Amino acid sequence: MAKAADVYFSVDPWKVTEEGFDPSYSRVSESVFSLANESMGVRGSFDEGGSVDSLRGAYVNGVYDEVPLAKSYKGIIDRTHFMVPAADWLQTEIVLEGEKLDLGKVSFRDFRRELDLRTGVLTRSFVWRTAAGKELKLCFRRFMDMVHRERAYQCISMEALNFSGSIRVSCGISFDTVHEGTQTCYWENVRGEADAQRLMLQGRTKASGQEVFAGARVQALGEAAYEMQDRAAKIRMEIPVLQGETICIEKRVVILFDGEEGDALRQAGISALEETEKLTAAEAAAAQADYWDAWWRTSDIQITAAEGADAAAAAAEQQGIRFCSFQLAQTYNGGSMRHNIGAKGLTGEAYNGHAFWDTEACCLPFYLFTNPEAARDLLLFRYNTLERAKLRAGMLDCRGACYPIATLNGDEACSLWQHASLQLQPGTAVAYGIWHYVRVTGDEAFLEDYGAEMLLEIARFLASRAEKGQGTGKYGFFGVMGPDEFHMMVNNNAYTNYMGKRTLDYAALVLDKLRQEKPGIYAKLVEKTGLKPEETADWEKIAAEMAIPQTAEGLIEQHDGYFNLPHTDIHTIPISEFPLYDHWSYDRIYRSDMIKQPDVLMMMYLYNSSFTEEVKRLNYDFYEPRTIHESSLSPAIHSVLAAELGKMEQAVQFFGYATRLDLDNYNRNTREGLHITSIAMAWCNIVYGFAGLRSDGEGLRFAPRLPERWRELRFSVLYRGKVIRIRMEKDRTAFRLTDGEQLKVQIYGKDYLLSGRETTVERE
Amino acid sequence: MAKAADVYFSVDPWKVTEEGFDPSYSRVSESVFSLANESMGVRGSFDEGGSVDSLRGAYVNGVYDEVPLAKSYKGIIDRTHFMVPAADWLQTEIVLEGEKLDLGKVSFRDFRRELDLRTGVLTRSFVWRTAAGKELKLCFRRFMDMVHRERAYQCISMEALNFSGSIRVSCGISFDTVHEGTQTCYWENVRGEADAQRLMLQGRTKASGQEVFAGARVQALGEAAYEMQDRAAKIRMEIPVLQGETICIEKRVVILFDGEEGDALRQAGISALEETEKLTAAEAAAAQADYWDAWWRTSDIQITAAEGADAAAAAAEQQGIRFCSFQLAQTYNGGSMRHNIGAKGLTGEAYNGHAFWDTEACCLPFYLFTNPEAARDLLLFRYNTLERAKLRAGMLDCRGACYPIATLNGDEACSLWQHASLQLQPGTAVAYGIWHYVRVTGDEAFLEDYGAEMLLEIARFLASRAEKGQGTGKYGFFGVMGPDEFHMMVNNNAYTNYMGKRTLDYAALVLDKLRQEKPGIYAKLVEKTGLKPEETADWEKIAAEMAIPQTAEGLIEQHDGYFNLPHTDIHTIPISEFPLYDHWSYDRIYRSDMIKQPDVLMMMYLYNSSFTEEVKRLNYDFYEPRTIHESSLSPAIHSVLAAELGKMEQAVQFFGYATRLDLDNYNRNTREGLHITSIAMAWCNIVYGFAGLRSDGEGLRFAPRLPERWRELRFSVLYRGKVIRIRMEKDRTAFRLTDGEQLKVQIYGKDYLLSGRETTVERE
Repeated sequence: MAKAADVYFSVDPWKVTEEGFDPSYSRVSESVFSLANESMGVRGSFDEGGSVDSLRGAYVNGVYDEVPLAKSYKGIIDRTHFMVPAADWLQTEIVLEGEKLDLGKVSFRDFRRELDLRTGVLTRSFVWRTAAGKELKLCFRRFMDMVHRERAYQCISMEALNFSGSIRVSCGISFDTVHEGTQTCYWENVRGEADAQRLMLQGRTKASGQEVFAGARVQALGEAAYEMQDRAAKIRMEIPVLQGETICIEKRVVILFDGEEGDALRQAGISALEETEKLTAAEAAAAQADYWDAWWRTSDIQITAAEGADAAAAAAEQQGIRFCSFQLAQTYNGGSMRHNIGAKGLTGEAYNGHAFWDTEACCLPFYLFTNPEAARDLLLFRYNTLERAKLRAGMLDCRGACYPIATLNGDEACSLWQHASLQLQPGTAVAYGIWHYVRVTGDEAFLEDYGAEMLLEIARFLASRAEKGQGTGKYGFFGVMGPDEFHMMVNNNAYTNYMGKRTLDYAALVLDKLRQEKPGIYAKLVEKTGLKPEETADWEKIAAEMAIPQTAEGLIEQHDGYFNLPHTDIHTIPISEFPLYDHWSYDRIYRSDMIKQPDVLMMMYLYNSSFTEEVKRLNYDFYEPRTIHESSLSPAIHSVLAAELGKMEQAVQFFGYATRLDLDNYNRNTREGLHITSIAMAWCNIVYGFAGLRSDGEGLRFAPRLPERWRELRFSVLYRGKVIRIRMEKDRTAFRLTDGEQLKVQIYGKDYLLSGRETTVERE
Repeated sequence: MAKAADVYFSVDPWKVTEEGFDPSYSRVSESVFSLANESMGVRGSFDEGGSVDSLRGAYVNGVYDEVPLAKSYKGIIDRTHFMVPAADWLQTEIVLEGEKLDLGKVSFRDFRRELDLRTGVLTRSFVWRTAAGKELKLCFRRFMDMVHRERAYQCISMEALNFSGSIRVSCGISFDTVHEGTQTCYWENVRGEADAQRLMLQGRTKASGQEVFAGARVQALGEAAYEMQDRAAKIRMEIPVLQGETICIEKRVVILFDGEEGDALRQAGISALEETEKLTAAEAAAAQADYWDAWWRTSDIQITAAEGADAAAAAAEQQGIRFCSFQLAQTYNGGSMRHNIGAKGLTGEAYNGHAFWDTEACCLPFYLFTNPEAARDLLLFRYNTLERAKLRAGMLDCRGACYPIATLNGDEACSLWQHASLQLQPGTAVAYGIWHYVRVTGDEAFLEDYGAEMLLEIARFLASRAEKGQGTGKYGFFGVMGPDEFHMMVNNNAYTNYMGKRTLDYAALVLDKLRQEKPGIYAKLVEKTGLKPEETADWEKIAAEMAIPQTAEGLIEQHDGYFNLPHTDIHTIPISEFPLYDHWSYDRIYRSDMIKQPDVLMMMYLYNSSFTEEVKRLNYDFYEPRTIHESSLSPAIHSVLAAELGKMEQAVQFFGYATRLDLDNYNRNTREGLHITSIAMAWCNIVYGFAGLRSDGEGLRFAPRLPERWRELRFSVLYRGKVIRIRMEKDRTAFRLTDGEQLKVQIYGKDYLLSGRETTVERE
């Protein structure tokens, strides 16, 4: 791994701070200072815009537009959809004696931008000095309401340091927002109304026809008037200022997107705007701080440096993991099962806002152990899009349901057929997610209401896609691309076959159990799906005869022919050739033993307890040196397995950038948005890796292994209504329940009964 | 093979005739009645256009335009080019008493359209009856000059059958021509000049900037005036007619595209137009007939039905093979080495006018044995585009030269990366073409002047693309698509490896021989190419250690893992699912043992004498039942091998549609244009198949096997300046030289010395 930190932000346990402004780092900062509340998100762009390099984007979760694609072959999508920027509610213009505020052009000093992870408030302050020498101190604050998720707040305070006079300010909202990739505005039919205190706009996306209401109440100062434009509205103020006096403009914003349209949406918008008046902005900010305070109390991970170790490094890790947790909670916390988790969350337009199988494979554990309702809602997103997955399976000449590799609404949105048609991971990840969710939460009712039906359709798809090899007589999936995206159109990819096998077995088990134990529910399911009695037997047969090619010692061949591929010594590839997708001929990436990300190891990570330590070690030692980690998900998974295998040095090395992937711009593409699904793996890296949590067996197991650089690691997990507080030290770990009576867990392979009193276990 | 003839045209040994007009068959007829003279081509559309279904297209060989493509990964083209319709020189409008001639709307009778293969003239006649009952007999004739290839002729004769009056006729040329696929006109900057007898236009393609001159001299009748339009010009005539009198309008057309531009091109155009006056149209037509007469004398294949056999079938085959030969000679005969042979020739816009590796693999033999200079020119096209092939290799992170899978100008034009980047066939086909050309013609000088340099760069490419498998320790090509396009991204495709091996060996041999025998030429080559002494040794090593996986008996595995693929019983696929590309999910096509077209068998066809009969039989018997023949090139190759293996019934069955692929619209897509490269295989099917000609060993070998349905098959081949006339009968074959003194050939494995006296050999 040739990765290097780009140290820019100050280290603080609870804050991310930018001291002084580097214009060349502007987009990275915008990403890092993104705010969201699941319903909407906004990048940390300057309210006043200007000429600085910027990807200005305010997004509404679930809002997208569609475009047709060139007609191609059957099964290749001819229409795609992508997140588009919605109403920009931070539009601000400030003019002082004819000079317009633009940090790309004017003189300024004492620039400071700060995100407070305890309150979710982003603050930016600086002193602007005009050409004529007038100094105005400005402070911009914003936050998005975590409780009333249609609400956002913007406050601008100004102090004239060395003059009295007047300032021209305008505050607006605009649907005249342009998608970066296509340079197109996707809003049409924008209607507005306004007065000197209130702006209201409604717009509709061009092809998808989604309607959004954006309103603002501006506590205007001075002489105010409104101005309507084509797709925007603003309130202009001429504000008199006295030297030494601080004035403050408050803007309460409401963004509504709830399926209503036209006048119904307008009325809902008016009501929602009125509702915001019930609290002052200060009260809203205080409620926001309370929300985060409660959240951190159960979800925080605390890191303390060991004596003599690099305290600064531990402090950076502490800040990093909090930033990750904060961003995850901002992006998704189960407010709606219409949403999923985009690879970049609501922080940028890269990956089109699409959610991938990362959701179930990488993000779900964070929610399972901090917010199980959110985990459930993530699975309900899949249930709610089951019909679309069934249509997709049909397009692929298969039965059942094929979940999309990339989506916002359940339709396949990936225009690269080699990913969309060959990667069977989404379906098996959903099945794994259901299995994992039920295992951790014990919520068997979920299976009856939703899970069984999903499993049935996924298993059907897999059974119709699986085929028998003529040579081996074994079943397998032919013509696939496994998690390792550097091998395409391969046969018997071990991950795909193994996950398929487990999925088929689990689906058969769940349905057979339902048939025996809940005949009424089973009968309804049969009626709905046309399930035939022989189907589950067929799944079991395919699962039993599934090819998992391996050596006598248990070294699994990633796919047929992998062991005969030409060798690439990945250590000889110069750093200048990364990312390989940009520097290597496309076809060249696919024909050696170099692996993009864990594939065989991924299944050993997910179904960890199903493999012996010897087999895991053998496969780790073989595949790790062949893995280039071109996916940001890769190092954390290796770290977890390395820790398990006692390779603590490697575990720590792979952990290296997990917590600060975006804060230190390791992949040099944070400018495009935060790696939301990757930073979920930072949480897993600590909890599964260093605390050795395993949740794929019966009950919970722990095997704490604190890295030497840390003196202490504290965190909590929520498990079946009980909060387990864990305090890891070098030689021992203490467990304590804060809620619930008793809980049986395994620690280092032995049973313990946890309770409200601390249980201390010596390190093995 | 589920193919069925669509019988429409009348059978005649020398003519293709349409009696009566079926509007639903209009585009098929247009394709079949295409004319060309290598420099330009025109579909058999109605001169007067009208509302009938039509793909109206007049093409100039080598004229194309370019468009940018969406930027994708490295090695995937971001720009493509395609043949565009050029000046439409047949524009005609005829109005009789306010009624405009439009065969989609008016009443007519006695429609007859006829292509005479002995003269290259297309004639169309019918009687138009106006609403008022006036009857006008019309006859349209056109031909393209095979000697003066810038010239074309159109003659319209009219006879008023039952009235006297006046007819309004306009004759024009137009660059306002629209490309069917993109619905775009690619001509701009069109300038024109005209008088009442002459029209001259010059146009330029938008992006490629190619300039074309189109001029016409119209022998106008009656009152004539010219009219200039935006991108077109015409001469309008008001012609008085008397009942029973026939009037005739002649139009001589000149289309120039020779690299000149602006006034130089205009002057050349004026001169060329003047030159046409030296012959009357009748004299030009007579010269044309002489040209074809001479051509048929050396190139004809004559088929006679056996007694008691289906005479009609033999007559249809006779017509079919002549139509194929005629179309090939029209499309390409070595007039320019700037041109190649498009898959659809100059008869339609499908495949974008692109040439594929079909040229060397399928078309070259026809030219080698009828027109060796044309064969040489085809290879020179590759020499002239060598620099572009070198650039392409660089884009693919390889050295040397990578010839394009689809091209008009030498640049890769195929936007499907899976074909453009994975199919290595074009380079090995060019190398095979050079090898075959030198072997048949003995033209060693070609190697010194061009061949060695091409071989060197192709071998370099292959050496940089070949890699060593870690398991077998053998070299091979990984991540390729062989001729069988139903398997993609496979390793060690037998065809690719074998052709690569032969190419590397041949390149090393040629260069080593040059080094020893022509040190001066060799030194120049080394200077030009930077050839290192160790390179040829490296090629030989790779060739020697090339993997060709096979069983002990010699059954070759098409690629690694092929024998373990799931089985598809191709006979169970309903006819409604063909073509599979249109009916099957794209990915589904790629994951079974079903083969699109010969792959292992293709190399046994090309390097026929390098494999024993037992090995050929073993592989034929294995692969033939797995082949779906979705490529029109496939059946003929199977027919040749079947004949060799004594499977005459299969040989005849596969031959079934070879000669009448387009005349009977077997593939249901003749409307898009003729399958020019496939119909080249009809010639090979007869000469290699039934006459058993082999040209890949030392000298020529024959093994005649006349199908039972024929009494006699006569044809000639031109070989090293000698014409060999061959007359096959049921039990014997007679050989005679018409030119040259003596020639040693093998017949049924025995040596014979052919001479001007007939040598008769009994069938074995």
